[in-house]
Amino acid sequence: MYEQLEAIQKRLNAISHAVGILHWDNSVMMPSGGANERADALATLGEMSHEILTSDELGECLDTLPSVDLDDWQRANVHELTYQRTHARAVPSDLLVALEHAIVACDQVWRENRRKNDWAGTVSELKEVFNLTRQKAQCLGEALDLSCYDALLDIYEPGLRRSFIDPIFTELRSFLPNLIDDVLSSQPVCEPITGAFSDHAQMQLARDLSSRLGFDYARGRIDTSHHPFSCGSVDDARLTTRHQENSFLQSAFATFHETGHALYTQGLPADRHADPAGRACGMMLHESQSLFMEMQICRSDAFLEFLHPIVCDHFDVSDRTGAWSKSNFRNVVRNVQKSYIRVDADELTYPLHVMLRYRLEREVLDEVLQVEDLPAAWDEQMQELLGLSTAGNYENGVMQDTHWFTGSIGYFPTYTLGAVTAAQMFAAMKADIGDPANDIRQGKVDHVLHWLRTNVHSKGRLLSSMELIKAATGAPLTLEAFTAHLQERYLQTDS
Amino acid sequence: MYEQLEAIQKRLNAISHAVGILHWDNSVMMPSGGANERADALATLGEMSHEILTSDELGECLDTLPSVDLDDWQRANVHELTYQRTHARAVPSDLLVALEHAIVACDQVWRENRRKNDWAGTVSELKEVFNLTRQKAQCLGEALDLSCYDALLDIYEPGLRRSFIDPIFTELRSFLPNLIDDVLSSQPVCEPITGAFSDHAQMQLARDLSSRLGFDYARGRIDTSHHPFSCGSVDDARLTTRHQENSFLQSAFATFHETGHALYTQGLPADRHADPAGRACGMMLHESQSLFMEMQICRSDAFLEFLHPIVCDHFDVSDRTGAWSKSNFRNVVRNVQKSYIRVDADELTYPLHVMLRYRLEREVLDEVLQVEDLPAAWDEQMQELLGLSTAGNYENGVMQDTHWFTGSIGYFPTYTLGAVTAAQMFAAMKADIGDPANDIRQGKVDHVLHWLRTNVHSKGRLLSSMELIKAATGAPLTLEAFTAHLQERYLQTDS
Repeated sequence: MYEQLEAIQKRLNAISHAVGILHWDNSVMMPSGGANERADALATLGEMSHEILTSDELGECLDTLPSVDLDDWQRANVHELTYQRTHARAVPSDLLVALEHAIVACDQVWRENRRKNDWAGTVSELKEVFNLTRQKAQCLGEALDLSCYDALLDIYEPGLRRSFIDPIFTELRSFLPNLIDDVLSSQPVCEPITGAFSDHAQMQLARDLSSRLGFDYARGRIDTSHHPFSCGSVDDARLTTRHQENSFLQSAFATFHETGHALYTQGLPADRHADPAGRACGMMLHESQSLFMEMQICRSDAFLEFLHPIVCDHFDVSDRTGAWSKSNFRNVVRNVQKSYIRVDADELTYPLHVMLRYRLEREVLDEVLQVEDLPAAWDEQMQELLGLSTAGNYENGVMQDTHWFTGSIGYFPTYTLGAVTAAQMFAAMKADIGDPANDIRQGKVDHVLHWLRTNVHSKGRLLSSMELIKAATGAPLTLEAFTAHLQERYLQTDS
Repeated sequence: MYEQLEAIQKRLNAISHAVGILHWDNSVMMPSGGANERADALATLGEMSHEILTSDELGECLDTLPSVDLDDWQRANVHELTYQRTHARAVPSDLLVALEHAIVACDQVWRENRRKNDWAGTVSELKEVFNLTRQKAQCLGEALDLSCYDALLDIYEPGLRRSFIDPIFTELRSFLPNLIDDVLSSQPVCEPITGAFSDHAQMQLARDLSSRLGFDYARGRIDTSHHPFSCGSVDDARLTTRHQENSFLQSAFATFHETGHALYTQGLPADRHADPAGRACGMMLHESQSLFMEMQICRSDAFLEFLHPIVCDHFDVSDRTGAWSKSNFRNVVRNVQKSYIRVDADELTYPLHVMLRYRLEREVLDEVLQVEDLPAAWDEQMQELLGLSTAGNYENGVMQDTHWFTGSIGYFPTYTLGAVTAAQMFAAMKADIGDPANDIRQGKVDHVLHWLRTNVHSKGRLLSSMELIKAATGAPLTLEAFTAHLQERYLQTDS
């Protein structure tokens, strides 16, 4: 009986492997002409996967198996496939197809209109995506006995609920603005680090630094893409970065971030790569691993001390004063600024960007806010949270992120919860193995990686994200470590 | 009813699209660690495709459709799917799986042992591949009412038979050795063109030259791989090349060859990309297109005159005398030599390499030659055909090609038949639109490409390869144009 499940799983794996590489290829390799055929192939592969997940054959397997004697991994696999099957069966195929078409149309219009700052020309497509996503959420909600928004959260992070997010975001909402004001009034002035940094030199640096963080290039690769991302599986983990000619810092920290994701992937249990429970947990936990590397490790004083001479050597900077001094380098990396664009935001203001989106997408989903009124609501929230006006500036306002226009509604909270999780994990790790700062100052992160491998990566989906956090850190997820970390890093000069 | 066939075809297309990209990724992008998971995924996708092809649903469609009113393309699609289904049903799945495993094992042993010149350690794996391929050929032969070897030929070039190949190869066998001796005694001495040519510079040249030949980079891409190849579909055609640091000519002519393949792919009927009959014909015709570009166009005097200054400019060669003179450049490209390695062979000796393999693989398949005795038979043939001894030199003898070790038995003849076809097409094109030499001398090949697009590329699989050759050239395939071309090119000094 369990063999039958494995045979079904083998097909799901083959499709999911193909879909993963096709998506990667889309973003990294495919010539523009290939878009239509690729979209057709991906849609059909999605249908084939959906058909397997909703099949009677899988249903019979899953109904019978819980009574059979299973080990922990087998039980987790059954749990995982049951979850996937429940999600797949909840939403009618024609609704999924309609949503998929709406997303393709909306994404295309958005790409075109964003640079033209043309919101009016985008509203009707976005309305359609929100409407169909609401219908999908209603179907899912009925099947899972959840509210609409919780049903969407459940797609990206199984088990995550509004009731968990709300108090955390409320507390953050009252904590962050004061801290940001304190930092803005006390942080040192910094000088931009400018120059001409070739793609080739930035890529060499990215490869070098990701290797030092533990990424294994025999089991992965790095490329460039329009938006950095990470994907793949334990023995073929892939990340991307992007380069700006006049600044190498964006590329470097995008690389650190994606390396965190990719290290998680490479740390998954290798002998379980065919198991549904052998994959990574939800997006909150995945984001915790990228932010652990980017924020907890690579923006720490210790790592910046290690990084500064490497970067100077790499770009042949001999005069290490002024903009290129170690202190200015640190100040640039740590600079806090109220700004329009989420992906460029610093560690302190980033959660405010997320809260704004969290609030607005819930309101649209609950039909208390109309899609037409999103820009006004966006502007009001930006004024309130960051004191910035986005009136008429759609490109840097409501149209800046791809998420809503591609139907990723209910995704945003995982970013900030990932940051909160990373801080709690770092604190737990310090309590476990001591402060790694001295090692990090010399570029040694093996103890850190070993702790993550043992307590997080190797667990796959044996536990839910929340259970895993509790097992790894000894406590349920709270804000405590995150707020302490921010205060220590941004208010203490010798942190 | 026809819609049902299209729905089945959609799934076959999605799988075949995915398999194509996964194979490309294997050879061009994948880190070594990814091999196992990739092999599993490819095997499973192959099984899924096989299951669709052998399904009752497809059978019922195909049985009913011939009585329905169909247009030419629809009829060709039905014919094509019937062909694929017949092949798929002929061979039992467990035999295919056993062969696939034998190939993976043999390929691995061969890669390892080739550089060690270790034939003895490879025999048993190769025996297994030949044995299982023989069984497959018997199954196919029974279903298609063909001899074993003809059944294998039919995989690579539908309709190609020994009875067609034998007289052509016999005639070539009596024609080529004398011609080669004449050329060897009369060809000018040439000086090797050496230097240090960076990967980057060679790749720039490859991109530039393939563009000039008409390859559209909005619908394709070029990369490097261990062995150059071409794949993809009309709007996403991909080719690869490889670079040697001390010689740019290998890369340039590999690029011309693969560009020929890729131009065929880009010239397929775009509105038929989802049709089974919208794909390229068999390997003989595909090879005719690569050799048309490489041999008929790019090794012509006219093209070499155009190419020489471009190459000199590209590599900053200011002193264009001696090795870098135009006449030496031409002589190097045209140099004929009896040599061990097929892939490095010139236009005149290449067919002899193919004939050797054609003869030996038939004999092993017919069990008149044992796998153990292949090296001795190889040596004997090399002595006879090219006057070279390969005794004990397995690496440059029987172990040089990947084909047998990966089960591609019955493939070799398509190389030489492709060359013969290219010559006949070039002659027909000259008769049609006049000699393009003056245009080619200025790097203009649009007329040539237009002729190929009209008479070959745009036809897809509406006709069989042999029918297409007859329609395009006005006559069935014969040796006449090929032998005339070789005599003209290699014996007349002002050809």
